[in-house]
Amino acid sequence: MIQRLTIVGLGLMGGSLGLAARERAGVGRVVGYDPDPGALEAAMTRGCVDEVTGDLAAAVAGAELVVLCAPVTELPGVLAELETMAPGATITDIGSTKSGVVASVPPRLRPRFIGGHPIAGMETRGAQNARAELFEGATWYLTPLAETEPARLRDLHRLLAALGATPVAIDAGVHDRLLAVTSHLPHVLANLLVVQAGEARIDGHDPLTAIGGSFRDMTRVAGANPRIWVDIFLDNREALASVLREHQRSLAEVLTALEAGDAGYLARWIGQSSGHRRRALEAQFDQRPEELYRVQVHVPDRPGVFAGITQALGAARINIEDFELHHFTPERGGTVELLVAGREAAEAAVELLDAQGYGALAAPVLADAT
Amino acid sequence: MIQRLTIVGLGLMGGSLGLAARERAGVGRVVGYDPDPGALEAAMTRGCVDEVTGDLAAAVAGAELVVLCAPVTELPGVLAELETMAPGATITDIGSTKSGVVASVPPRLRPRFIGGHPIAGMETRGAQNARAELFEGATWYLTPLAETEPARLRDLHRLLAALGATPVAIDAGVHDRLLAVTSHLPHVLANLLVVQAGEARIDGHDPLTAIGGSFRDMTRVAGANPRIWVDIFLDNREALASVLREHQRSLAEVLTALEAGDAGYLARWIGQSSGHRRRALEAQFDQRPEELYRVQVHVPDRPGVFAGITQALGAARINIEDFELHHFTPERGGTVELLVAGREAAEAAVELLDAQGYGALAAPVLADAT
Repeated sequence: MIQRLTIVGLGLMGGSLGLAARERAGVGRVVGYDPDPGALEAAMTRGCVDEVTGDLAAAVAGAELVVLCAPVTELPGVLAELETMAPGATITDIGSTKSGVVASVPPRLRPRFIGGHPIAGMETRGAQNARAELFEGATWYLTPLAETEPARLRDLHRLLAALGATPVAIDAGVHDRLLAVTSHLPHVLANLLVVQAGEARIDGHDPLTAIGGSFRDMTRVAGANPRIWVDIFLDNREALASVLREHQRSLAEVLTALEAGDAGYLARWIGQSSGHRRRALEAQFDQRPEELYRVQVHVPDRPGVFAGITQALGAARINIEDFELHHFTPERGGTVELLVAGREAAEAAVELLDAQGYGALAAPVLADAT
Repeated sequence: MIQRLTIVGLGLMGGSLGLAARERAGVGRVVGYDPDPGALEAAMTRGCVDEVTGDLAAAVAGAELVVLCAPVTELPGVLAELETMAPGATITDIGSTKSGVVASVPPRLRPRFIGGHPIAGMETRGAQNARAELFEGATWYLTPLAETEPARLRDLHRLLAALGATPVAIDAGVHDRLLAVTSHLPHVLANLLVVQAGEARIDGHDPLTAIGGSFRDMTRVAGANPRIWVDIFLDNREALASVLREHQRSLAEVLTALEAGDAGYLARWIGQSSGHRRRALEAQFDQRPEELYRVQVHVPDRPGVFAGITQALGAARINIEDFELHHFTPERGGTVELLVAGREAAEAAVELLDAQGYGALAAPVLADAT
């Protein structure tokens, strides 16, 4: 295992990486660097690192692996500094976009460099909130260069797997185009949707006070941290712009069909969407999508109500694949949606919930007409 | 209360309305009509109605209220037939779009007609799945005409409130423009997103196998029942096309800013989005959005795991405002996200979950950088 790991940048990600490396991967010694003394102190207090320093050269001296957890815009500068330091170390980063970073790697670092991007869930900030579990179950993209020495990729891969992540090697440009479609485009659309609805006044009605489940689901990521997302959008601007132009073209087609009253086109288009969504569900659930049922139940808004529901289902060995609460108000309560596998499980769930005095409904996910 | 109610069209909605009217609103007698004998039988078996008939004139004879639950494309035909029947009855419908229906109401029915649209959640099909609870907590839009007699609106309003719904009177055109923004636009974008990602192959990678939470949230309604949604899109084509053109214009602006590397524009735009999302959260939760915290916890994929979590929180009187499970795989488990009100509740939840052996994270929703 790695004897000496240096983490450059001790925010939530860097701090969590340190914790996980110490607790889960048996790394000998974790050294932390950050230009901010407050970050160094937080990382030490939280136990993310064995030692800290505000001197980059001292931090990376003797390191086998250096992980750059600094903001993506600062990476080229840090890489230039590293050119004359830690001559044996493997260097990787965790930036959300990869082409720019990879292109900025100085030639003599290239055999030792591997780009990286962990798809870690929610982020809070600062090493004081660090968690060893942050990378559990997360895809961790790795973008080795043509010059990268294979043994370095293998060792990094092993470390990440030990942290609980799933390393996936991918070309940097492919990564950025993939993320443009799967992450950056959804973020742009979420922002566009919220701003359009938020700015509209329809005869005095504020659309935002009349939104339903589909709107809510689609705008959960709207307004996310501008400091992070402006950098991501701009750093991936070429791939993202291309994806947005494609969206424009498809939208123009749908608009033409709509204005022409072309029911056939619209039906084929929705059918195409349905087929692709089925494929996405298959990839997500390891279940045949036909087997997935949505169980809907109305519940009062009070503590403990979920316990009764989930206990009853757990006791009956009904596995909940997915679970959502659509909250109404304290007076009205809300609606719980459970995803379960198989018609039998769905019917059993409805029966159990009925027996608890809740009115429940079940329907196949794929026939869902919401 | 209403002595005689006739429901025209005995699918899930018509059937549920009958059940709710009988069980909750004390309606004297509920009569059901449907051209399909199978639907009549299902409605009788399920107890949705007191009697059924395949003869429209007989069904509506003597009715105080006739509710049209037929598909929106059939409503003009049914309204034409009703012109010479049930001279005293109030007539309403439950179609998802309102301008078209309202325009098709024959002059002599207009003083007795009120358009309607219940925003009921998930739909399964057929009266055999009818549930009295379907309308509980649902907004039920009512679009009276200029000619509608006020007492009829008042009586219908009372009936719907007795069913558990919240009636909201609104102009038909305003309703359609509102729904175009809050419902139809999200549906179009969800379909566009899934089709674009589904059709793309990025150097051999299928984006749909690499999607994360934001993509999943945004495409939950993609591919929904084409038979219903083609009609909705086309029936509301004018308002929807106008909303889609506005989306095109905003997107073009963002694209220009992106290509120009205009960080200031993008930051202001995301900031605007953040402000509107805050307003939407206020409307949704009756909580100051600053008070909402997201608690994230990684859990194994096995029955009963939710019971432990929700029981512990319930016992500690921590109210769960919202609840989502992001499922990974049977091997990896998944991530549960709980929304709770207040920093204290969030911290208590993290402490409790830690005590149960789960690693939990908490962060304010508004600072959410996912």
